[in-house]
Amino acid sequence: MHPYRTHTCGALRADHVGEQVRLSGWVHRKRDHGQLLFLDLRDDEGLTQAVIDVSSPIFSEVERIRVESVVCVTGQCVRRDPETVNKKLPTGEIEVRVEQFDVLSAANQVPLQVNSDEDAGEEVRLRHRYLDLRRERMHANLQLRSDVIFSLRQRMVEQGFREHQTPILTASSPEGARDYLVPSRLHPGKFYALPQAPQMFKQLLMVAGFDKYFQIAPCFRDEASRADRSPGEFYQLDFEMSFVTQDDVFNAIEPVLAGVFQEFGGGRAVDAPPFRRIPYDEAMLKYGSDKPDLRNPIEIADVSEAFRGSGFGIFAKAVDKGSVVRAVPAPGAGSRPRSFFDKFNNWAQKQGKAGLGYIIFAEDGTAKGPIAKNLEDTRLQQITDAAGLKAGDGVFFVCDKPSEAATFAGTVRTEVANELELIAPDCYRFCWVVDFPMYELDEETGELAFSHNPFSMPQGGMEALETQDPLTIKASQYDIVCNGIELSSGAIRNHLPEVMYKAFGIVGYAPEEVDRRFSGLINALKYGAPPHGGCAPGIDRMIMLLADEPNIREVIPFPMTQRAEDLMMGAPADVPEDRLKELHLKLSLPKKKAQPTQSGGQGGEQPGAAASGQDTTATSG
Amino acid sequence: MHPYRTHTCGALRADHVGEQVRLSGWVHRKRDHGQLLFLDLRDDEGLTQAVIDVSSPIFSEVERIRVESVVCVTGQCVRRDPETVNKKLPTGEIEVRVEQFDVLSAANQVPLQVNSDEDAGEEVRLRHRYLDLRRERMHANLQLRSDVIFSLRQRMVEQGFREHQTPILTASSPEGARDYLVPSRLHPGKFYALPQAPQMFKQLLMVAGFDKYFQIAPCFRDEASRADRSPGEFYQLDFEMSFVTQDDVFNAIEPVLAGVFQEFGGGRAVDAPPFRRIPYDEAMLKYGSDKPDLRNPIEIADVSEAFRGSGFGIFAKAVDKGSVVRAVPAPGAGSRPRSFFDKFNNWAQKQGKAGLGYIIFAEDGTAKGPIAKNLEDTRLQQITDAAGLKAGDGVFFVCDKPSEAATFAGTVRTEVANELELIAPDCYRFCWVVDFPMYELDEETGELAFSHNPFSMPQGGMEALETQDPLTIKASQYDIVCNGIELSSGAIRNHLPEVMYKAFGIVGYAPEEVDRRFSGLINALKYGAPPHGGCAPGIDRMIMLLADEPNIREVIPFPMTQRAEDLMMGAPADVPEDRLKELHLKLSLPKKKAQPTQSGGQGGEQPGAAASGQDTTATSG
Repeated sequence: MHPYRTHTCGALRADHVGEQVRLSGWVHRKRDHGQLLFLDLRDDEGLTQAVIDVSSPIFSEVERIRVESVVCVTGQCVRRDPETVNKKLPTGEIEVRVEQFDVLSAANQVPLQVNSDEDAGEEVRLRHRYLDLRRERMHANLQLRSDVIFSLRQRMVEQGFREHQTPILTASSPEGARDYLVPSRLHPGKFYALPQAPQMFKQLLMVAGFDKYFQIAPCFRDEASRADRSPGEFYQLDFEMSFVTQDDVFNAIEPVLAGVFQEFGGGRAVDAPPFRRIPYDEAMLKYGSDKPDLRNPIEIADVSEAFRGSGFGIFAKAVDKGSVVRAVPAPGAGSRPRSFFDKFNNWAQKQGKAGLGYIIFAEDGTAKGPIAKNLEDTRLQQITDAAGLKAGDGVFFVCDKPSEAATFAGTVRTEVANELELIAPDCYRFCWVVDFPMYELDEETGELAFSHNPFSMPQGGMEALETQDPLTIKASQYDIVCNGIELSSGAIRNHLPEVMYKAFGIVGYAPEEVDRRFSGLINALKYGAPPHGGCAPGIDRMIMLLADEPNIREVIPFPMTQRAEDLMMGAPADVPEDRLKELHLKLSLPKKKAQPTQSGGQGGEQPGAAASGQDTTATSG
Repeated sequence: MHPYRTHTCGALRADHVGEQVRLSGWVHRKRDHGQLLFLDLRDDEGLTQAVIDVSSPIFSEVERIRVESVVCVTGQCVRRDPETVNKKLPTGEIEVRVEQFDVLSAANQVPLQVNSDEDAGEEVRLRHRYLDLRRERMHANLQLRSDVIFSLRQRMVEQGFREHQTPILTASSPEGARDYLVPSRLHPGKFYALPQAPQMFKQLLMVAGFDKYFQIAPCFRDEASRADRSPGEFYQLDFEMSFVTQDDVFNAIEPVLAGVFQEFGGGRAVDAPPFRRIPYDEAMLKYGSDKPDLRNPIEIADVSEAFRGSGFGIFAKAVDKGSVVRAVPAPGAGSRPRSFFDKFNNWAQKQGKAGLGYIIFAEDGTAKGPIAKNLEDTRLQQITDAAGLKAGDGVFFVCDKPSEAATFAGTVRTEVANELELIAPDCYRFCWVVDFPMYELDEETGELAFSHNPFSMPQGGMEALETQDPLTIKASQYDIVCNGIELSSGAIRNHLPEVMYKAFGIVGYAPEEVDRRFSGLINALKYGAPPHGGCAPGIDRMIMLLADEPNIREVIPFPMTQRAEDLMMGAPADVPEDRLKELHLKLSLPKKKAQPTQSGGQGGEQPGAAASGQDTTATSG
């Protein structure tokens, strides 16, 4: 007989009744029924009930064992009495009579109850992650994570991709203000950096002639943590393809994403490829966001013209001065009391807005409310037509400068749909947002700047750069969005050095500056580079969506705290003086300790580390 | 028609003749035949010949194109004349008549010929790695690497393992003299470290109840490079299992390794599981190495007793003083001239040894040579029996203190087999070396020290530690060896804190010291830890074996130089003062520049960075 087990704790069935078996596992729960003591034994595969009679000579030994100790039980597999069969448990028809009992590892009193869902607090959970991970939900989350990643790999290989590992010790990127640096021992005073993404290397692989690359790539970023990004490291499904158009990229990855979400989505509906493609301008207008949540059926409409020169003076004047009015329908809200609409108005004021105008359409079609009173029927008709309103609906109005109006209308859209419970449950809705602007005016300086990724190919190429108003040029750049969460941005890259110099020239970079900053890539492009493009959907975010977990730490085996600490292993930590000397470094500590540097106690969310900040770079690829 | 291609450069066959096709790729080679110009177009999938007639209006444009430019060719797929069919090329029956020719990216003059095997030198190759990787051999090596790793993953999953990612930013290990350190911005004066291996975390996963973990794990080590270890980072097939014996570990991984070597070994013979298991003492005696190359049929024998009190005074006296004599057979060398044996004697002297005694057995069985003259027939018989010698063989003798004799006999064994061409070609011979000693005497201090991994379970557990002479205790530790190359060491771990304290106590550590140094692991073991063990075969080494490449840089996409520099991306590099300030660091550079810190020029092997040093830790797991 194997010294530890003949079966796992998930294996025994009625078929095994009568067999002499041996199981090893953790003591999940002990139940004392007077004459009988029941032990639930747990391992990676499941739970099995073991039972011992008070008359047994080893009863007292079994009785004394602490939960979470690891024990080995040998005995006969017997059928349970019909009334004690547990139909919820795959092993619920049987139990094991303990004849031999070996303690493989006795547990101290545990600081966190494994067999309960009681919240132990973030600090205890992370400090004793090996206990936290024993809990059913965390165990399932990590199995899911592992299975999802394996499935992603298989699907990518089926699509003709090969995985290649790119360096983790590499050069700091010129914009790498949030690169982790690694001092070199062999080269005094010099530093490596950990990559924020393998962007340069995947482009170099294309230049090297590898057609379809992917990698489940570790990425590093030294920045404040957020609910959807772990501090320190995170993973991307990084991929890149040569000789492709934007559609080729979409066609390659859509079956992978749809397939994985179907496989692991627990029966939720998943959009079938091809996913919707929404131009950036349309997304900003209709959804007030470049990350539209398509589970929300509300579509925003521009109704500026209906207000121009109208009797509703505030909007009319604003429109004349260049503002726009956006209508956010509230389907079916016409029957809601006035207080419903006033609540939104108050909410908007709390957001720092002037307020939120509205019209209520009664069941008979009558338009009510202060705004309606000031609009003629033709104008009302214009609004209902544009926003697709019908009797019994409500509508909110946002009036502001175009970009502010778009964004706030998007916020209202979300709020209204939540309030009216319009978000479709149990589904994964995907879309691509395409045709991002190549350039924008920097809000502070008023000068031209890249909107997103400077390495994207401008649509129209060199001709567009030479002849178009830069603000009208679109980039061959796209975002993939699921349920309002941006999984990644991506692009068809600019593979032509002369177009690169020109694109950077528009925002004021001299060619020498481009050479200096991006020499690795730009040199490579001069030796024959294929047109190429890709994307890099965030792995952790996908798993959060699939596991339905709002916090990324629930889907990572050993995450750091929000202050980027590993409480269990004690990182970061002081290092001995001689190690620093060897690295040619000296500490230069702040005089006044601005914050405690000791580990621990950072269970809650940090102020200022909110999850709302937009950040496209981390998942760009 | 797709803007870049209807087919890859490896796709067209006689079936496609008559079709209008479009291919994109690199101009691999141009051949001017007067009236006709041939272009070989290359992409990830293969080569296709394109042809253009001098009469074409675009001939001169095609003629001017530089090799390694990326072009797109459109035209008819036509059958080649029978005499120009190239049977070596899958596309060799056809060619494409160029009707349209688009330059997608013009290449500068390349510093490295992609279409030749000419050695461009290490520096040029690494600086322009994107060109080097276009070469057929490198391209094939990296495809192999990708395919091997994918196959390893599939095979591990088939064996019931799940892959989990462990942290890359973690705590420095107490013995981590070669950890890369990463300064923390949020915690002034504190540092993370990059893991030399995920050893702690995989053990914590076992404590967390994950039964069978694996990971294609990046590992980091700041040390001099060697032919078989890239500086900076390398990859291991790291795995760990719970509730297992040593045999369970072997049984789990053997089909994975044998399967991958069969799949990618190019038809070479591969040992079928179960692999041979050789106790450490036997390996040192028979093969003079704990990494025996079983392709070498020679087995060393101890013949000390045959010399004790014999007429061959040098050996007889040495044996009396505690030396041993080891016989290294030289099968079939009996017919070699005296000079053959004298050459070995000279070689041994160059190795700093006194020389290498030998006996030659003529075809008629007569023993010849200076040693034979001084031995009686019974002693000769003792030797031939022990070493399995027959007429026509030779035998060399090493006489020294036991450990020196073992090691040098191993060197002689390799040398003799090479000289006699006895190494079996075209095969992969695997073995496990088991039963390593737990402790040894430190050569310098003479005190007890751990032989290898202090975290291995001592065979016999607590009882052995309490009752045995430490030097007789074996560890539950093992190495997996292929063709004389150690792929990894591994162990059944010590999962019991009390046994851990005792094991460390024997080498002089107080329990508090153990707690201080290994708190993360030892705390976890106190909350119920399963018996567990694993191993971590080196990925890069496996691929070197499969690709038959002697240098690890040939099987890694973007390796660093031996001085740990990335010549292409320029790493390591200076960082701006304000970045250092943010990290609370100051440089403390050596006064006298001991070595140039500029990149480049380190093509050859560094003195002192030899590949011979034994090092078990890097691949331990």
